[in-house]
Amino acid sequence: MNLKEKIRVIDNFPKEGISFKDVTTLLEDGEALKFSIDKIVEHLKDKNVDLIVGPEARGFLFGVPVAYALGVGFVPCRKPGKLPYETYNTKYGLEYGSDTLEIHKDAIKKGQRIAIVDDLLATGGTVSAVASLVEKMGGEVVSLDFVIELTELNGKEKIKDYDVMSLVEYNL
Amino acid sequence: MNLKEKIRVIDNFPKEGISFKDVTTLLEDGEALKFSIDKIVEHLKDKNVDLIVGPEARGFLFGVPVAYALGVGFVPCRKPGKLPYETYNTKYGLEYGSDTLEIHKDAIKKGQRIAIVDDLLATGGTVSAVASLVEKMGGEVVSLDFVIELTELNGKEKIKDYDVMSLVEYNL
Repeated sequence: MNLKEKIRVIDNFPKEGISFKDVTTLLEDGEALKFSIDKIVEHLKDKNVDLIVGPEARGFLFGVPVAYALGVGFVPCRKPGKLPYETYNTKYGLEYGSDTLEIHKDAIKKGQRIAIVDDLLATGGTVSAVASLVEKMGGEVVSLDFVIELTELNGKEKIKDYDVMSLVEYNL
Repeated sequence: MNLKEKIRVIDNFPKEGISFKDVTTLLEDGEALKFSIDKIVEHLKDKNVDLIVGPEARGFLFGVPVAYALGVGFVPCRKPGKLPYETYNTKYGLEYGSDTLEIHKDAIKKGQRIAIVDDLLATGGTVSAVASLVEKMGGEVVSLDFVIELTELNGKEKIKDYDVMSLVEYNL
């Protein structure tokens, strides 16, 4: 399946000069959704993953079905104030601006094997912040998995010490 | 499986007097996640559902794995400004405050059979707003499916014309 045909590209969103990759058209297509999730699951299935971690909100869209298909749990990283229990947080830069994400303090136990799933690898700011947070909590980050990679932003360089997989590449 | 044991209850979140049902502890538990999704899928599998619709952000957590397991697509309803293409929107009251959700104009085609999935049925404000939006777009709402129902808020009365299912009930 050519997944690129399933992704809508919208110019100048969320601001002038950005060519936004809209994954909602992929999500709406049952076969494309299944194909995408199964590809990530195929990549992860022999890695003895204990938990999938995904950042709000588009990381939820792909991370939870991957967790479901693997039979493991899912841990959300959320915007400040959304998680009800005690949290750790991380502040990081991203493609347009900066942001903070929180994770429940008791969500990851020492030695657990974690894969982080998100829709998009851009500069790598979000995922490297989440990976560091997971490692501070004692988790072992065994893979970083994306639907889309914007190769020109060179995010892969920032996360070169990790196992990284993306389904579709765009040269911006 | 007793799903209630998997849900953490946190008093006075997000404000005094609210007894918050924290589904992250259920999500983190691979077996409980699989059990929950499979229960919803079981309920939907003979309804010829074309698409799952889920509101941001916790509706994503349960809606996408249900769509994946059924082999159908998922349509997100998002907070204003998040969807990149042309949208319809709905403003509605909820348990604490009011909110607006948007949906892509081309996400639902006339006659498509839609199930709406969310984590929580409280007053029914969110889901009835989303159901109305889906119907205005020509979709047929065939089921509303929740992980948790807060029975005392009587949300079911507001959505009594629909097929409704919830996995766990709390008397507040």
